[in-house]
Amino acid sequence: MSTISAPKGFILSVASAGFKKSGKPDLSLIYSETPAVAAGVFTTNLFKAAPVLVGEETIHGKKNVKAVITNTGQANACTGEEGLADCRLSLELLSKELGIAPTEILPASTGVIGARMRMDLWETAIPQIKENMGKTSVEELAAAMMTTDSFPKFASQSIEVSGKTITLTGVAKGAGMICPNMATMISIVMCDADIEQTTWQAMFERAIQTTFNRATVDGDTSTNDTLYGLANGASGVKITDAEVPLLEKSLEEVLAKLAYMLVQDGEGATKVIHIHVKGAKSLLDAEKAARTVGHSPLVKTAMYGKDPNWGRIVAALGRSGADFNPMDVVVTLCGVELFRKGRPTTEDFDSLLKAPMEKQDLTLEISLGNGSGEYTLLASDLTHEYVSINADYRS
Amino acid sequence: MSTISAPKGFILSVASAGFKKSGKPDLSLIYSETPAVAAGVFTTNLFKAAPVLVGEETIHGKKNVKAVITNTGQANACTGEEGLADCRLSLELLSKELGIAPTEILPASTGVIGARMRMDLWETAIPQIKENMGKTSVEELAAAMMTTDSFPKFASQSIEVSGKTITLTGVAKGAGMICPNMATMISIVMCDADIEQTTWQAMFERAIQTTFNRATVDGDTSTNDTLYGLANGASGVKITDAEVPLLEKSLEEVLAKLAYMLVQDGEGATKVIHIHVKGAKSLLDAEKAARTVGHSPLVKTAMYGKDPNWGRIVAALGRSGADFNPMDVVVTLCGVELFRKGRPTTEDFDSLLKAPMEKQDLTLEISLGNGSGEYTLLASDLTHEYVSINADYRS
Repeated sequence: MSTISAPKGFILSVASAGFKKSGKPDLSLIYSETPAVAAGVFTTNLFKAAPVLVGEETIHGKKNVKAVITNTGQANACTGEEGLADCRLSLELLSKELGIAPTEILPASTGVIGARMRMDLWETAIPQIKENMGKTSVEELAAAMMTTDSFPKFASQSIEVSGKTITLTGVAKGAGMICPNMATMISIVMCDADIEQTTWQAMFERAIQTTFNRATVDGDTSTNDTLYGLANGASGVKITDAEVPLLEKSLEEVLAKLAYMLVQDGEGATKVIHIHVKGAKSLLDAEKAARTVGHSPLVKTAMYGKDPNWGRIVAALGRSGADFNPMDVVVTLCGVELFRKGRPTTEDFDSLLKAPMEKQDLTLEISLGNGSGEYTLLASDLTHEYVSINADYRS
Repeated sequence: MSTISAPKGFILSVASAGFKKSGKPDLSLIYSETPAVAAGVFTTNLFKAAPVLVGEETIHGKKNVKAVITNTGQANACTGEEGLADCRLSLELLSKELGIAPTEILPASTGVIGARMRMDLWETAIPQIKENMGKTSVEELAAAMMTTDSFPKFASQSIEVSGKTITLTGVAKGAGMICPNMATMISIVMCDADIEQTTWQAMFERAIQTTFNRATVDGDTSTNDTLYGLANGASGVKITDAEVPLLEKSLEEVLAKLAYMLVQDGEGATKVIHIHVKGAKSLLDAEKAARTVGHSPLVKTAMYGKDPNWGRIVAALGRSGADFNPMDVVVTLCGVELFRKGRPTTEDFDSLLKAPMEKQDLTLEISLGNGSGEYTLLASDLTHEYVSINADYRS
């Protein structure tokens, strides 16, 4: 993990602004030496945070950018016109320090909703972050984005195109208010390919459908979900239509790894439940079934309790709104078939599943026997620690 | 509470069949001396338990009944044809003992999903339950229906019609897999009015819309939700069209009290959150908003932590799918306005809400400023105890 490096032409930096009480780094900068093509996908929550509104504006303008600045500790969400002004001011302060335009910087914020940004802290931190440019690793960058995360999340892939290497490196932060819809909390992918903006943006819009949008911790879609992609061309490789599938596959793999880490590090999580629904009447029916099971507090607490409680799984399916005949449903947990034709397959499921339930990764296969719709969702379990974190943390 | 008695002509009984490991009473009988008009509303879960299927059959037949038998500890859900046969056999055994027809008995079961009924325990318990007829109070009856409930739930109302008294007495059990949709886990209302079956049934179908269907603990709609109403006419009062509104109001009040108790005694619950959404574009939008807030694990843990975390409330509203403009939303918690025009109303909300958040009952008023749709939902909080109960209990 520690050998992962940023793609060519990207310089990283972090600073401790004081948004976090711990004094740990809470401001992180990704800087591209040359102008980078930018893609962005954002939360579908109606309450969009100020940095989401500002970032959307820049992405829609399709202009190249040179930097992404991320702060943790303050979400700058639900802060009205003042919040928007604070966000723009932070970009202006940074742009002066870096000698670039404010519109060349994409913002992202995470933390407590509702509080006004501490602009005094920004002013002190910005010279620091310039000072630290080039002294920061990918891991340190990801660590400076964390809120309730317990480990930094980053992934990288390299591909060969025309005898040259292209690198894709992504960072992400979770760990609560996670049920991304369009994008996740905050994730940024750096790439040194040379690519058209519209191609790059379209690639992200497709890639999230099978990665971040299929991960859930608590079903709560955040006000700040943001995924940025920067491609600066420093590899010297121009991506033609022929190479798009190769790069997109690589992007999907990076995003899938990050999405897995989000669930693995879900607040208080001890399990990653791989829910695979097939045989649904439609994709939407498959999604309804998977999400209802993945969000059921009774299923999530059972998985935490290492209890192969298939009754709760079928009860969740039955209220999901998916269209199927109960007699056609088959439920298989960790490879052991538990339920078929409206009744349990085995009475021995407790002993059969004792060892498999100890593992971190649990596979749950559900067949609805009503068509060819499929959906896969990664879900975390619901634990004492989740309650402790969220009864105390002000998000 | 302890002075509540059953309406005229109803005889109660309980027995310890052994479904509960504790040896406490787990079988309960409501017996009407004269044939009673019966109403019933049931779960909308596609996986309907055997007693739900059998009970529906009887209610659809519109014939009078003489008894309701309820067992806890075994849900007899997802047990296939054998489960249906077990249910019918239990009614047959009881009918012989009571000297009535099996079709005059309504069944209800709650407990672990998937296990076959222990018919040997039924056989031993049925003579006991006959033996105990008339020795059981309403409170003891309600107690024998409990699973993870911490207190027995019952409520009663009397009204005067034509100089005579009509009594309505209801019992209910919660406390998990509670998000009734058509009816709740198990609730039975006894009444000594003389009323037409279709009028009685219609009254229940209306009354649940504003009572049980507006209560949630965990969003999990059970396979066994059942509400029965028995009216035996023993008061000697015939209900004419003119008296229907009076009786229905009384029924609504009894069901509302029971629904409140279900939430109050939600698994691990320490709070009852009264979520009132108004100004929605439609009733459905109001319901979406209320349910998304009431099911949000982040909102529920914040309420448990006595944290007036309005950011999580607005984030839940924003992902609810309800149609509104974020700038029009007003959020008021325990009488303190927290959010208006896209930003916090006060910075002082922590101190203003310190005392109110200590109370068990929290009112959350949400105005969407987009119409006249309203919806009220009672929701419990999400606590460490909820996780403990459900990581251990096999439901």
